[in-house]
Amino acid sequence: MSEQSETVGRVYLVGSGPGDPDLMTLKAARLLEEADVVLHDKLPGPEILGQIPEEKREDVGKRAGGEWTPQEYTNRRLVELAREGKTVVRLKGGDPFVFGRGGEELEHLAEAGIPAEVVPGITSAIAGPAVADIPVTHRDHASSVSFVTGHEDPTKDESAVNWHALAATGGTIVVLMGVGKLPQYTAELRDAGMDPDTPVALVERATWPDMRVACGTLDTIVDVRDEAGIEPPAITVIGEVAGTRDRVRQFLETQSATDRREGADDAE
Amino acid sequence: MSEQSETVGRVYLVGSGPGDPDLMTLKAARLLEEADVVLHDKLPGPEILGQIPEEKREDVGKRAGGEWTPQEYTNRRLVELAREGKTVVRLKGGDPFVFGRGGEELEHLAEAGIPAEVVPGITSAIAGPAVADIPVTHRDHASSVSFVTGHEDPTKDESAVNWHALAATGGTIVVLMGVGKLPQYTAELRDAGMDPDTPVALVERATWPDMRVACGTLDTIVDVRDEAGIEPPAITVIGEVAGTRDRVRQFLETQSATDRREGADDAE
Repeated sequence: MSEQSETVGRVYLVGSGPGDPDLMTLKAARLLEEADVVLHDKLPGPEILGQIPEEKREDVGKRAGGEWTPQEYTNRRLVELAREGKTVVRLKGGDPFVFGRGGEELEHLAEAGIPAEVVPGITSAIAGPAVADIPVTHRDHASSVSFVTGHEDPTKDESAVNWHALAATGGTIVVLMGVGKLPQYTAELRDAGMDPDTPVALVERATWPDMRVACGTLDTIVDVRDEAGIEPPAITVIGEVAGTRDRVRQFLETQSATDRREGADDAE
Repeated sequence: MSEQSETVGRVYLVGSGPGDPDLMTLKAARLLEEADVVLHDKLPGPEILGQIPEEKREDVGKRAGGEWTPQEYTNRRLVELAREGKTVVRLKGGDPFVFGRGGEELEHLAEAGIPAEVVPGITSAIAGPAVADIPVTHRDHASSVSFVTGHEDPTKDESAVNWHALAATGGTIVVLMGVGKLPQYTAELRDAGMDPDTPVALVERATWPDMRVACGTLDTIVDVRDEAGIEPPAITVIGEVAGTRDRVRQFLETQSATDRREGADDAE
């Protein structure tokens, strides 16, 4: 990054991770301390936002009335604050570069000559499944993993996801923001020839204190969602790996039952 | 997780992130402090490994003579240590569940009745490109991103990656451990109809102090690799997003040039 005059501040595009404050990076935690201003939306989650002093925070997320702050406003505000000499953290849920529009903000800042730095965060696309005991790749089950967005964010355009190609990869598919359009894309994947018995898991508010998980198959998951009342934000995991959770739970339940039988020598 | 007798320890499958100690999570840093034993290979990188007291460390990576510790040994050792009542950290580069065999270790521990917990880490598949100013997704350029492995790790089997399907997704492709087989899969992607002018970036030792980046196209990247002498470990990023780095640099260079011309009013 080029040298700037001392009156120009620096912007950090920081990923806050999936929501558990413990899953923030050391660097993110330090930058939140050092920042003069933190621009954020709701996605970092209540626990992380609750740790930031009110007077430092500027909410650039959904506004009263359900409207979204235009990206142009956020871009302009970042430049404005930096030009006032402020140290600015643009805090984003997950990772700034995974469906986070961090790329656009970085280019905008570069164009305005503002020194900017990206600080990666743990993406909920990986950590969401992980805390539900689901590995997104597995030597036996998945040699690739693809991340797509369900486009529930109205600020994201409806660019066509090629579900047929994703199905053909044979790897795990992780859909972010994909609760609402679950019926559409599960149908597309079945049309593409994916086995209707393929395990599917939904992880709602991954790593938050009130996280919930619901499991089914490509065929049943829409009903499972409706019965469990799963709501956004949630991650959808499609692929054989989604079955890991049940295997791990079964082992532990067997073990737990064995533990309860006094005198048992070993787990089955 | 089921209750265990007090003599059984706990195993944490911890991702150390891409190598910069500052990109470890707060939880990972705390667990490294608390652990009785840390089982690791070389992938966490010299800076992170250097912070762990020698007497806590057990290397289960590549052994003298170039052989790898069999996964079975690592699995057995984790169970053994936990049964001795130890708090065990199994430290993995990046994220334990992204080509990290964390899934296998988790299932093995569950089967043995050992309480285990996964602690996600920043994957170099996202952070590697990010620190090189490359967002893996972008509203204008990539509505999906797929991660695959180049299978340079001999302990991983050669399960077939469907490069044609990956090309057809139209999204970004990130190859981990993909320096050696770069000629093979760039050829496959060209055969699949991917534009030979598609930007490709190689990020060697991402976030490490001696990180290097080399950029080219699907057509030129093998020559670029050879000229720059890029070696493992490195990340390959294939897709329009890989061009972001050059755009950002150009803006900053223009800005920098403008700054050097005293009296200039604004950047071009």
